[in-house]
Amino acid sequence: MRAVDLIQAKRDGRELTEAEIRFLVEGYVAGAVPDYQMSAWAMAVYFRGMTAAETAALTLAMARSGDTVDLSEVRGTKVDKHSTGGVGDTTTLVLAPLVACAGVPVAKMSGRGLGHTGGTIDKLEAIPGFRVELAQETFVEQVNRIGVAVISQSGNITPADKLLYGLRDVTATVESIPLIASSIMSKKIAAGADAIVLDVKTGDGAFMKTLDDSIRLAEAMVAIGEEVGRRTVAVISGMDQPLGNAIGNALEVREAIAVLRGEPGVSPDLVEVCLSLGAHMLLLGGAASSYDAAKETLAAKLSSGEALRKFAELAAAQGGDPTVADDPGRLPTAERVVPVLAPRAGYVGAIRAEALGTAAMQLGAGRATKEASIDLSVGIRLRKRIGDRVEAGEPIAELHASAATADETLVAVARRTAEAFALQDERAEKPPLVYAVVTPEGVARLA
Amino acid sequence: MRAVDLIQAKRDGRELTEAEIRFLVEGYVAGAVPDYQMSAWAMAVYFRGMTAAETAALTLAMARSGDTVDLSEVRGTKVDKHSTGGVGDTTTLVLAPLVACAGVPVAKMSGRGLGHTGGTIDKLEAIPGFRVELAQETFVEQVNRIGVAVISQSGNITPADKLLYGLRDVTATVESIPLIASSIMSKKIAAGADAIVLDVKTGDGAFMKTLDDSIRLAEAMVAIGEEVGRRTVAVISGMDQPLGNAIGNALEVREAIAVLRGEPGVSPDLVEVCLSLGAHMLLLGGAASSYDAAKETLAAKLSSGEALRKFAELAAAQGGDPTVADDPGRLPTAERVVPVLAPRAGYVGAIRAEALGTAAMQLGAGRATKEASIDLSVGIRLRKRIGDRVEAGEPIAELHASAATADETLVAVARRTAEAFALQDERAEKPPLVYAVVTPEGVARLA
Repeated sequence: MRAVDLIQAKRDGRELTEAEIRFLVEGYVAGAVPDYQMSAWAMAVYFRGMTAAETAALTLAMARSGDTVDLSEVRGTKVDKHSTGGVGDTTTLVLAPLVACAGVPVAKMSGRGLGHTGGTIDKLEAIPGFRVELAQETFVEQVNRIGVAVISQSGNITPADKLLYGLRDVTATVESIPLIASSIMSKKIAAGADAIVLDVKTGDGAFMKTLDDSIRLAEAMVAIGEEVGRRTVAVISGMDQPLGNAIGNALEVREAIAVLRGEPGVSPDLVEVCLSLGAHMLLLGGAASSYDAAKETLAAKLSSGEALRKFAELAAAQGGDPTVADDPGRLPTAERVVPVLAPRAGYVGAIRAEALGTAAMQLGAGRATKEASIDLSVGIRLRKRIGDRVEAGEPIAELHASAATADETLVAVARRTAEAFALQDERAEKPPLVYAVVTPEGVARLA
Repeated sequence: MRAVDLIQAKRDGRELTEAEIRFLVEGYVAGAVPDYQMSAWAMAVYFRGMTAAETAALTLAMARSGDTVDLSEVRGTKVDKHSTGGVGDTTTLVLAPLVACAGVPVAKMSGRGLGHTGGTIDKLEAIPGFRVELAQETFVEQVNRIGVAVISQSGNITPADKLLYGLRDVTATVESIPLIASSIMSKKIAAGADAIVLDVKTGDGAFMKTLDDSIRLAEAMVAIGEEVGRRTVAVISGMDQPLGNAIGNALEVREAIAVLRGEPGVSPDLVEVCLSLGAHMLLLGGAASSYDAAKETLAAKLSSGEALRKFAELAAAQGGDPTVADDPGRLPTAERVVPVLAPRAGYVGAIRAEALGTAAMQLGAGRATKEASIDLSVGIRLRKRIGDRVEAGEPIAELHASAATADETLVAVARRTAEAFALQDERAEKPPLVYAVVTPEGVARLA
């Protein structure tokens, strides 16, 4: 078998066999297939696409290219959740304890933030003492004992995906649905999931800008799940504005705690999406008989305080300070809070999530490069959301900044933040939260 | 400017500017743009094509990527000729002296053979003493003195093309008309041509298998010539069988000498294509008023013996033995001549040129790799051509082999040679020699 022949086959629209795809992926990781052949192949895939069988083969080859997590010792159906890169998206911090106390084991590996998107592991590190690295046996033992553990991706997980993603990033081959789908699914499969709930963001702040593209990506991932025997459901949720009101690590932990406390009216969009994703997790985990029943169970776990206690238990189990659950003031706190004022009166018509993510990164909440260090205390809090009425000079957001931040930086970030709010004269409708649900049976459009 | 953005632009169908293409080519040669970006870009070009302006910009950027030959000291219009890889194609050995003695200066750089195709430089080295490397001043002085010089490509000519071609070869991006066209034209422009006559082969033994593809390639090259101010004409000639009867270096020199001797009936197909290409060279060089007049002039130069004397003069000027012109027996001669017999009676319906080129290579006439050494004396001579009647057991070709060649090799080559002849019961028509002529004004289909 020669790589050049497989590139040509893909270029000419022939379906590659499972063995051929394995040859490419294994050869790439071993260094036998060079970058310049993989990038040409990826570009051919961009133009020709991949069949469901090819996409599944690529996913499995990448999932098996390095270490895999063995969760067979964890009792119950392991349901994993993945979001396609959100801003102000604190769902994992809410869902992990919430789903766990509803009876579905959560053995979760998460990542760090990059660019304008945040990462669960950074957020967890805002809890004083929280250890994000556990030995495999400790990880499994903790899930069996308290139902939940969240750790940093460790070991050599899906090296093929890491290599290929890095290559795609510099060869204009990122925007290929089968390549995106197999990249995401390979990591979930390597992480040991039995079933997967996907939160596919759509809209301006999302990777997929249009609903149709988001549905196509969701369908590709659900199809992979079917092909490889991991039942997968995808929720298409809106990124027309940040999901919660907090952007930045400790700020998002505070918001998650507020949600877990179950007080009515706190971050209703975040709550609603968490209940929807969590309900699908319960269904896939066999812990509920219907979607509505699952949602009711979860809502009860919030209002009873059980979810918050599970959060504190999770923190304590991994060395973190459990008292933050009752006293979020113990979390890292920024030295300066600077309001961002509305430049005019009007209605909030849109809030560009990506611009806010970048603004928070400029304050130090996120990483411009993988090696950059971050400040867990800083970020942005929204004071207004789409549909809200705003008077000129009224605070629309607040910057949480370090004392070390230069005034020019603060001014620039404040301007960027203000510009992220589109103010208009006409009343604006609140955008839908969940646009569609994609299951192996088909697509249900909800908005 | 970033390479990834230019790859994406091409991927998305946007036309690249001249500066953008120069950035890619110069960056590639300098090592700033890596192989994996160029291969992804080449694959995007495969799918999206290139406009005439883009193709011309690529051609010029590659032509200027290394040394260029300055022929300004050569008096007259320098007309170059290029063939797209033939088998048994001895046109340069005939045309260089023939066109020179009709008044058009020939300052030609040629290459060596690779794989199943031969190269003029190897053939010239079959003339005892012939030096294929001349200093630039000697080269120019010789052309001004006797009208003709043929040398090996020297110096660092079109390094961008060499790099890109090598990359395309292993990334399934060879078969792109704008990339093929710019590769060929960049070398001709770097070699100093004022005008170019192209011999684009079509048919089974050619790089372009169909007439339509051959015409598209010719049109692309003629368009480049127009864009860069080098008048270009392309003749589409058939590769339904080898053009001449000789395949192998000294054998082809003998055939060229026989043609230059002007004896009627010798290699009529080779003569006819040489007259056609030569006539276009005379027209572009301003040495004839019409195609028919040009052909008559050339035919007269053959029958008068002037062309043969010019051939001897060329050989002598470059240190070669001029007496081979009158005594071809002084050329290297193979030790063994083995007839290949027809396995059945019938008519010759086709002669697969590529298979014969490969068979001759196996005898030692050509190189499987660039570094391989060759035997100038060996090769294959055809005894039958398409349309000829053959009896079972009649010789259809002869192998000219070294005494050192193993018997098993000879048997295998003889079988391959016999299989290259398609024998059939029905009478077969002789295929057309010239299918079409492509000029900036359009395509004239002749067959």
